[in-house]
Amino acid sequence: MKHFEQNESGVRSYCRSFPVIFKQAQGAELIAEDGTRYIDFLAGAGTLNYGHNHPVLKQALLDYIESDGLTHGLDMYSLAKQRFLETFNRIILKPRGMQEYLVQFTGPTGTNAVEAALKLARKVTGRNNIISFTNGFHGVSLGALATTGNEHHRGGAGVNLNDVSRMPYANYFGKDVSTIAMMEKLLEDPSSGVDKPAAVIVEVVQGEGGLNCASAQWLRGLEKLCRKHEMLLIVDDIQAGCGRTGSFFSFENMGIKPDMITLSKSLSGYGLPFAVVLLRPELDQWKPGEHNGTFRGNNHAFVTAAAAFEQFWQTDEFAQSVQRKGDRIRARMEQIAKRYSAHKLFVKGRGMMLGINCPDGESAAQVCEFSFENGLVIETSGAYSQVVKCLCPLIISEEQIDQAMDILDRAFADTFADKQVNKAS
Amino acid sequence: MKHFEQNESGVRSYCRSFPVIFKQAQGAELIAEDGTRYIDFLAGAGTLNYGHNHPVLKQALLDYIESDGLTHGLDMYSLAKQRFLETFNRIILKPRGMQEYLVQFTGPTGTNAVEAALKLARKVTGRNNIISFTNGFHGVSLGALATTGNEHHRGGAGVNLNDVSRMPYANYFGKDVSTIAMMEKLLEDPSSGVDKPAAVIVEVVQGEGGLNCASAQWLRGLEKLCRKHEMLLIVDDIQAGCGRTGSFFSFENMGIKPDMITLSKSLSGYGLPFAVVLLRPELDQWKPGEHNGTFRGNNHAFVTAAAAFEQFWQTDEFAQSVQRKGDRIRARMEQIAKRYSAHKLFVKGRGMMLGINCPDGESAAQVCEFSFENGLVIETSGAYSQVVKCLCPLIISEEQIDQAMDILDRAFADTFADKQVNKAS
Amino acid sequence: MKHFEQNESGVRSYCRSFPVIFKQAQGAELIAEDGTRYIDFLAGAGTLNYGHNHPVLKQALLDYIESDGLTHGLDMYSLAKQRFLETFNRIILKPRGMQEYLVQFTGPTGTNAVEAALKLARKVTGRNNIISFTNGFHGVSLGALATTGNEHHRGGAGVNLNDVSRMPYANYFGKDVSTIAMMEKLLEDPSSGVDKPAAVIVEVVQGEGGLNCASAQWLRGLEKLCRKHEMLLIVDDIQAGCGRTGSFFSFENMGIKPDMITLSKSLSGYGLPFAVVLLRPELDQWKPGEHNGTFRGNNHAFVTAAAAFEQFWQTDEFAQSVQRKGDRIRARMEQIAKRYSAHKLFVKGRGMMLGINCPDGESAAQVCEFSFENGLVIETSGAYSQVVKCLCPLIISEEQIDQAMDILDRAFADTFADKQVNKAS
Amino acid sequence: MKHFEQNESGVRSYCRSFPVIFKQAQGAELIAEDGTRYIDFLAGAGTLNYGHNHPVLKQALLDYIESDGLTHGLDMYSLAKQRFLETFNRIILKPRGMQEYLVQFTGPTGTNAVEAALKLARKVTGRNNIISFTNGFHGVSLGALATTGNEHHRGGAGVNLNDVSRMPYANYFGKDVSTIAMMEKLLEDPSSGVDKPAAVIVEVVQGEGGLNCASAQWLRGLEKLCRKHEMLLIVDDIQAGCGRTGSFFSFENMGIKPDMITLSKSLSGYGLPFAVVLLRPELDQWKPGEHNGTFRGNNHAFVTAAAAFEQFWQTDEFAQSVQRKGDRIRARMEQIAKRYSAHKLFVKGRGMMLGINCPDGESAAQVCEFSFENGLVIETSGAYSQVVKCLCPLIISEEQIDQAMDILDRAFADTFADKQVNKAS
Repeated sequence: MKHFEQNESGVRSYCRSFPVIFKQAQGAELIAEDGTRYIDFLAGAGTLNYGHNHPVLKQALLDYIESDGLTHGLDMYSLAKQRFLETFNRIILKPRGMQEYLVQFTGPTGTNAVEAALKLARKVTGRNNIISFTNGFHGVSLGALATTGNEHHRGGAGVNLNDVSRMPYANYFGKDVSTIAMMEKLLEDPSSGVDKPAAVIVEVVQGEGGLNCASAQWLRGLEKLCRKHEMLLIVDDIQAGCGRTGSFFSFENMGIKPDMITLSKSLSGYGLPFAVVLLRPELDQWKPGEHNGTFRGNNHAFVTAAAAFEQFWQTDEFAQSVQRKGDRIRARMEQIAKRYSAHKLFVKGRGMMLGINCPDGESAAQVCEFSFENGLVIETSGAYSQVVKCLCPLIISEEQIDQAMDILDRAFADTFADKQVNKAS
Repeated sequence: MKHFEQNESGVRSYCRSFPVIFKQAQGAELIAEDGTRYIDFLAGAGTLNYGHNHPVLKQALLDYIESDGLTHGLDMYSLAKQRFLETFNRIILKPRGMQEYLVQFTGPTGTNAVEAALKLARKVTGRNNIISFTNGFHGVSLGALATTGNEHHRGGAGVNLNDVSRMPYANYFGKDVSTIAMMEKLLEDPSSGVDKPAAVIVEVVQGEGGLNCASAQWLRGLEKLCRKHEMLLIVDDIQAGCGRTGSFFSFENMGIKPDMITLSKSLSGYGLPFAVVLLRPELDQWKPGEHNGTFRGNNHAFVTAAAAFEQFWQTDEFAQSVQRKGDRIRARMEQIAKRYSAHKLFVKGRGMMLGINCPDGESAAQVCEFSFENGLVIETSGAYSQVVKCLCPLIISEEQIDQAMDILDRAFADTFADKQVNKAS
Repeated sequence: MKHFEQNESGVRSYCRSFPVIFKQAQGAELIAEDGTRYIDFLAGAGTLNYGHNHPVLKQALLDYIESDGLTHGLDMYSLAKQRFLETFNRIILKPRGMQEYLVQFTGPTGTNAVEAALKLARKVTGRNNIISFTNGFHGVSLGALATTGNEHHRGGAGVNLNDVSRMPYANYFGKDVSTIAMMEKLLEDPSSGVDKPAAVIVEVVQGEGGLNCASAQWLRGLEKLCRKHEMLLIVDDIQAGCGRTGSFFSFENMGIKPDMITLSKSLSGYGLPFAVVLLRPELDQWKPGEHNGTFRGNNHAFVTAAAAFEQFWQTDEFAQSVQRKGDRIRARMEQIAKRYSAHKLFVKGRGMMLGINCPDGESAAQVCEFSFENGLVIETSGAYSQVVKCLCPLIISEEQIDQAMDILDRAFADTFADKQVNKAS
Repeated sequence: MKHFEQNESGVRSYCRSFPVIFKQAQGAELIAEDGTRYIDFLAGAGTLNYGHNHPVLKQALLDYIESDGLTHGLDMYSLAKQRFLETFNRIILKPRGMQEYLVQFTGPTGTNAVEAALKLARKVTGRNNIISFTNGFHGVSLGALATTGNEHHRGGAGVNLNDVSRMPYANYFGKDVSTIAMMEKLLEDPSSGVDKPAAVIVEVVQGEGGLNCASAQWLRGLEKLCRKHEMLLIVDDIQAGCGRTGSFFSFENMGIKPDMITLSKSLSGYGLPFAVVLLRPELDQWKPGEHNGTFRGNNHAFVTAAAAFEQFWQTDEFAQSVQRKGDRIRARMEQIAKRYSAHKLFVKGRGMMLGINCPDGESAAQVCEFSFENGLVIETSGAYSQVVKCLCPLIISEEQIDQAMDILDRAFADTFADKQVNKAS
């Protein structure tokens, strides 16, 4: 451990919650140096939807490397990239009526995809302002950070974060207040002080923001507003996409058609750095190389991504299994929430992007700590880190789910069973 | 080719110069779909210092993948990361008296490392302004882009790029004008309008800016200025580092001690996305997770990076071979430049980061086009894309160098032999 | 007229509504070149609360000029300035329990006072963000303009207007929605994306914004929020202050104690350029000369301002007359609004800051045009210029009020009597 | 004095150097409460070119006030404004071939005129960036402050000052370095990082910056650069204009034709707040009211300004007297500078905008303090407040000049006669 303590910056964070050294990982399991196995309910913060080192993807990657396939090629054409484009179009986009979207390979991080989308939106519309939402998280490079809500991350900027108007997310002011109607009034009013935005950037489920969900109706209202005021609709599907909510895109069957979509995290399928922006063809007003980056051609990721599409998305089976497992997890969560209802626990999220809202960050942290000690890697999210977030690999078995939920059950018992109800909460 | 043309954004750029589909790559060679082999004088824009798919690194990576080593682990502790830290400290930092630098694992792209360094500099100093230089290139996410000089990239921002004061690089106004003295006057003068900067960010050799070189004297002057005005000195060694100039860091033996150093590109040794910021321990004022990112734990890259340190940097031999090969290339370049001296060609750069300055971008493009048709992948850089840039893998053989230089020789002949001298140039 | 048309910029605006050349003015009357007299229901947009060329103020000014009193003295001490400070403290501040407020003489325009207040708030708190409200108007120099809501004025900036979070004013979303509660949620939530503000800047009645009024309860809620989050409360009383609402300050008897107050417009009493910021002593962290300006010592304005304090504010009489006249005007307005209730006319405002809300800007403009043709100078305000605004001198006689209201009555009749009801409105 | 100390903000500054209360002023003299007379070598920081309370202007103002002439009229047409436009065009603009310039009446302060000019430049060109110069002073509202060089004033902003590129003024790096050539290189170079500016804003003599002068050649070079890069040329003639340098505009006979000119300070002739922007007709792309302000129709100032044009500018006589008096002052200054040449004193400035550069701010302050104690009001300027600045009314008599220079002579003797030469200086 001394190498980390002596040589790594104090900015490191997850390792503080899980102070062991991991050596291997398989499927839904992480294996520490000493052989201890942990069920992984963090899954790389949503990056490992198909689990760790999935054997099919692994074999595809090994074969590619063995054969000296092009590893790094800037944005040059490669067979691996061609295969990615072909499978992505055929297996993912076309069946969803989205085949006309163009793929921009950005730097291989979510924040870079967001930067690219914001730049393009401003360029195409000639406007500066971007609407982003309370509790939204879109990354921490300067352009993306301006759209991110979290003050912990914003505080790191060191300069003013500008050119963004913050709007309340769905249900931010409760079920009875339409935040769409609010935005509408602000956008209609020529004296509201809200400059006409280039775009709205929105997460369909706010992963870092605490698993807040937007309904189809809210999203359609948002899209309508976008059309009326000629703002582009950017769906940031970096955490909620790639199957996490039970469909490849989080907004499927919701009746909207985003102008741009950002994808990253689980896109490579193997945890390899990869990110893209999908964009409507008429928006593709980039000049060659205008947004560039050294690693926008990570061919290993192309290989595993294509393999993942073929493995998981040729039929509906995988999506259905996600729904089913999500229901299984949710049922157990609802039980827990009900049991400690005096503490106002409740379940949040959708598909396999679920969490239990605790009264505060301290109790949520206590749950996670107990869980880790008992073999479950799990983390919190939300404004107060108050949501215990279950973000396991989608390929997890039902046995593993049950095992993990048993640990979680005991963790909640340990935390809440004898706890005084906080009157103020 | 249709998949690219139909499904990829027009932002793609290198592929336009090299319109073939690559399938494999070995050492200093790229291999197209039809088996044609090209010598690679682009090397992933400086990412492939050890060549494509180096067998030792490849084996280390295959072994790691085979064994289900942790691929993606956020910023959790892993054996691979531990080994990276240990070898990096032992083989690279310690022998250079730099063992106290801490390593921050940022998002795995150069631009993200720059974003992190700028944020930390502003945070630590409580100042906003950053000095960056004419012709500097530091990436295209919003924070980094503000420090980048190129108007093509700046034009993509869509918003004002601020909080940066631009200063003239070494020799920008000719050999006789000390740009250090200029900066000094501007920084001393309380009414100059140049706000006290948090930091200076500088490349020792400007890769994208056209291979402009700063001398040791200039850098020491810059460091002195930094100390006097309590500005941090950030060396962006993303392109010039990792051996490119003949030593691991581009500033070795120059008598400076940067406050922060950004590394990326060739750091993984295998073309895998990876970036770090090195920082003096007293600057490590990050709160845990304040700058974060999904892929800051790319364990494959840790594995190949550690293997590369052990393979290439345990003795001086590799560094010496770079110097030697650099001399070999430079000698051929000088011949070419001399032959067409009527066109005012001249050689720029240092180590194996070399180029020939042409009178304009058109002739430089013609040289590259001819080269590609004859089996050499090579690109331009500089404000007018007027520098034909030789950025081959450092492990290239002397035979390959000679072969490549022969092609280049013919390319210059084809371009300049009968060309009218442009009187205006 | 040709001198204006040939030599003045097209930015001129009021003259377009009142295309005559004025030569003289007395009390509530403007006199054109040809002798035509107009009742003035515009009053210099709230600058002429004591009417044009009030004889007492006029004599004081004449005496001062005759005696070669200091006219311009930067921020040097002068007898006239001393008398201003003395009378202002004795007659205005002390009786209201506000004697500890310090006076900052800014450049002699409202926008400059706002600039100074915002700068000081940011300096004192070390924060950047400012909360300003929908439909707020605070001036058009760059710092103030960022807080102004109107897109017509914002569009003139030519650069991004930043460092301001826009919040909904009192009743912006209707009577049933507490915008204070909304702000509270956004400010409490560490992940809302609303950075902690240095200050809130608010008008108690929004003059340019269409005569929207904040209640005492709303203002107290706002002040409480300010205290809780350590934001300063700046009341911009430039238009609503100096007696316009029936008390010297618009917020008297509302139970709040602003940290800073901006005053201008009617402060000199004679239409002379003058502006100040009042500030709590503990906020006075200015360095000498840090905010400066050539005309911050307009001694003529000091003379007339002091005379106005003595003439109008030594007893309650004047304030009471304002209330009475306000009631008189409002009664007539209510009649008009009721008569054309099919068009959903309604009365807005407080004291002698009143207006009739028309269904659209076109009909309001028609009312004003008819009025001018019949001897009444009157203008519109509001997001759609839809409010016919009665902003007459406070010293107007009841006869003049009746005369003006008769004209207005006919103007509304002319505009609405036979007008189709706009179903869409 | 207690009213000031108890009730005025500590931002006050000039009064600290001249701690007496002034009651009257005539011509070149200020008269304190106790009857002490001071010769005024500050002249309202250049606002009182025609002296205090000039009898002819005074009579015109008294007559106007007596007759109830319109005092405040927003931007409505008035006889006084018409007369201003007519005399300004006939007496000032036409004889200088500048009759086509349009007049924009901005808020009545220099900083507001600068704000308007910058806004219009950005609006017309569609660019954000402005070039301003080292040691330039253009006001302290946020837009203007960004172009001002002084860190004391910039430090008051509380937010980042952006969208300005700072360039070295004429001779900033010594007589041998062409700062025009430097700017040219930066503007030509597409990778310099200096974004194409909307405009350049420049003072022909830098009043606050320490009386640095630009030559005709330098200005023509700057104009040429503006034309080539389609940047507008804005001359800020607020302090150097209205006769100060020996001609109405400071740039007369220099062979340039600015796109915009800002005037304020001495424009009204009587010390009354007044400012305008002059602009080429093709630039007048303002929408009505887009830049507005309550006091842009200060009719008292129109009256005295028109009277001043007629009194002083119908013949060449006044301008010639300025040159003559300037020479008289300069001769005495050169004597002083020579006498203490060991301290490297030297004379700076042009016309009647002159000063003696001292080795540091302390000695300059000592000179001013001694002078004030002996009946001369005089101040410093420059980056280090090191220039003793002679800015007396242009109507000063030769006797008063001699009297003042005698005092100054003694002040320098008192300060420097026995002073050790500062070796470091």
